[in-house]
Amino acid sequence: MQHIRLNDMRQFNDLGMKRTLVHDCADFRMLNFNFKAGQELPIHSHDADGTLSIVVLEGSGWFLGADNATIEAQAGDVLVSAIREPHGIRAATEMRVVVSICPPI
Amino acid sequence: MQHIRLNDMRQFNDLGMKRTLVHDCADFRMLNFNFKAGQELPIHSHDADGTLSIVVLEGSGWFLGADNATIEAQAGDVLVSAIREPHGIRAATEMRVVVSICPPI
Repeated sequence: MQHIRLNDMRQFNDLGMKRTLVHDCADFRMLNFNFKAGQELPIHSHDADGTLSIVVLEGSGWFLGADNATIEAQAGDVLVSAIREPHGIRAATEMRVVVSICPPI
Repeated sequence: MQHIRLNDMRQFNDLGMKRTLVHDCADFRMLNFNFKAGQELPIHSHDADGTLSIVVLEGSGWFLGADNATIEAQAGDVLVSAIREPHGIRAATEMRVVVSICPPI
């Protein structure tokens, strides 16, 4: 068992989103991303099978999808996407999310 | 892409924890569990490979482990456990968690 306190990772970076590894194993990789208002994880995709989830812990912004789609995202929202689908995140406020990539790539 | 609002699942049940499916695919199953104070997911394990994560969205309580281990859990905490390790949850307050089971069993 591994116990992780995401609140201990609650730091922000003026230069861009702050990315912290939460857990990595054969089944999934979990990452914590913190954004200041206006920062983003640019839309991208990977040529790999698998599925990712994004859980918004704090703040609000948008999930980004193909064709410039934007989906409003706030604390308590989840996005599930194939890894090979275009996906991204843009923050409207300070925003913290936890991303699980399954299987890890 | 699938967008889910966990806040829409914020209901509690006097008779026991309330369990709602968030997502199910070949890569993982995600479930939302809501507990009233004192309710629990009793400690259990499964004879299967894989790894699960529990992210506490709201409230506080304990993660339960083998040998009556209790680990304090509050919003923002994560537990990662092998599916075959004993694991459980007990709520001290109204408590909401999101569990990902990878691969789904």
